[in-house]
Amino acid sequence: MKIIHTVAEMQAHSESLRNNGQTLAVVPTMGALHAGHLSLVKLAKSRADQVILSVFVNPLQFGANEDFDKYPRDIKNDEHLARQAGVDILFYPSRKELYPEHYHSYVCVDTLTEYFEGDIRPDHFKGVTTVVSKLFNITKPHVAVFGEKDAQQLAVIRKMTRDLNFDIDILAGSIVREKDGLAMSSRNVYLSKAARVEATILFKTIELVKSSLNNGFHDIEALLAQAKTNLKKAPLATVDYVQLVDAETFKPAQSLLQGKAYIFILAVKFGSTRLLDNLHFTM
Amino acid sequence: MKIIHTVAEMQAHSESLRNNGQTLAVVPTMGALHAGHLSLVKLAKSRADQVILSVFVNPLQFGANEDFDKYPRDIKNDEHLARQAGVDILFYPSRKELYPEHYHSYVCVDTLTEYFEGDIRPDHFKGVTTVVSKLFNITKPHVAVFGEKDAQQLAVIRKMTRDLNFDIDILAGSIVREKDGLAMSSRNVYLSKAARVEATILFKTIELVKSSLNNGFHDIEALLAQAKTNLKKAPLATVDYVQLVDAETFKPAQSLLQGKAYIFILAVKFGSTRLLDNLHFTM
Repeated sequence: MKIIHTVAEMQAHSESLRNNGQTLAVVPTMGALHAGHLSLVKLAKSRADQVILSVFVNPLQFGANEDFDKYPRDIKNDEHLARQAGVDILFYPSRKELYPEHYHSYVCVDTLTEYFEGDIRPDHFKGVTTVVSKLFNITKPHVAVFGEKDAQQLAVIRKMTRDLNFDIDILAGSIVREKDGLAMSSRNVYLSKAARVEATILFKTIELVKSSLNNGFHDIEALLAQAKTNLKKAPLATVDYVQLVDAETFKPAQSLLQGKAYIFILAVKFGSTRLLDNLHFTM
Repeated sequence: MKIIHTVAEMQAHSESLRNNGQTLAVVPTMGALHAGHLSLVKLAKSRADQVILSVFVNPLQFGANEDFDKYPRDIKNDEHLARQAGVDILFYPSRKELYPEHYHSYVCVDTLTEYFEGDIRPDHFKGVTTVVSKLFNITKPHVAVFGEKDAQQLAVIRKMTRDLNFDIDILAGSIVREKDGLAMSSRNVYLSKAARVEATILFKTIELVKSSLNNGFHDIEALLAQAKTNLKKAPLATVDYVQLVDAETFKPAQSLLQGKAYIFILAVKFGSTRLLDNLHFTM
């Protein structure tokens, strides 16, 4: 596995691989790799000759009072896991390399970023779309892979890719879960023991909604009420939002139409740790 | 000369040229081609195997009360001139192709875009950086060529290219002038006969400042006062700004330092027609 730290070397290497007829996939991450990330690498390997994994804790997507400083970092372990997973190139730039002094350029997507995560975390998506644009320009991939756990982020990146005409296929990897159903996340390590036990409520609520849908129960208000009632079983949890949205626009669905894609999304806080989970489904 | 209208065809064509080892240059224009544009094509040809000329009147960079509707359009003549100049590919997309319904993504550069043109034309540069990013992603060039006449635009594009890590060399073409010194611009056709005569005042003022500088006259306040006094010789002219700025940041220079690059910039209105001109120099 090749390890690259600078933009110039990464661009030259990608360019040379492309000139040799190789197809490239990038998996952008903030490190603290877990089985969720590794499933994205696997998906990437199935679709390209060479897989680039980027590790960069992007300051631009953290709010002033968020966990940028304490976000878990363990590059040695990330390197080990990446090598094991068959990553070809680990791109691990410094903050100064990506955001030099007097950095002033940004990429933003309107509308889609105004609700849910964008409402709770102002400028979060602007940070995401900016760094992803940079990573696209640096790694020059044919394919980029993102996790479905961050469902709204995935929708925002798809929208940006299409609008700005990046000639890159965006692939989505399914959520990978712990044995008890908790969606894998680098932030799960923040949970107290008690919160960790209660945190399965997100998955349980998703299973409940899924089974209701499968049983032909399609009344949106009633489904959301059922979900909210279920979440009350976890006394340590504070609900940020529970909603059923159009999969592309992230606007709350008014009714469920045959053939259309929707996402049931929820964000729940345990202390200062926010957990996201979701269920994609097509009617 | 190949004429391409769609994003998909342009991307596939550029990709195939790159895969065959060809270097590509793009010259983004809004059409209404004149000798200034053709000098950019010439520069592009000296630096790349294949030259792509794009013609697109970008609605995003026009303000609500600006001249988008009456901006000169003559694609047949543009096609003729492009062919004569040796353009290899004319990319001529429709508005719907570049900005489909529910278009929501933008690229912006802060700070540098806040003064002068950015101050007078809010959102102008956001429109420019957005369309140029799109054109970069669509045409996939190694080199992109812009005119020095739009000096601040050039600085903004250089900044965006560097910040967002586009792997593209930005080249600047010198200002091309009419016989009497007026900088060529597609907007010169708007000038009344009387204004057209007076419009040489911009070039004359530049020549005056240049000769003062060459004579070792380096007092910025006095140079600007001299320029303003000279502009008064044109009674139809209204001065938008006259300034001497740092070539990279576009901040007004406080003093002229040895080895540093500066630009003397001026914007003058004749009725509703704004003319820009400038002088790049290094102390």
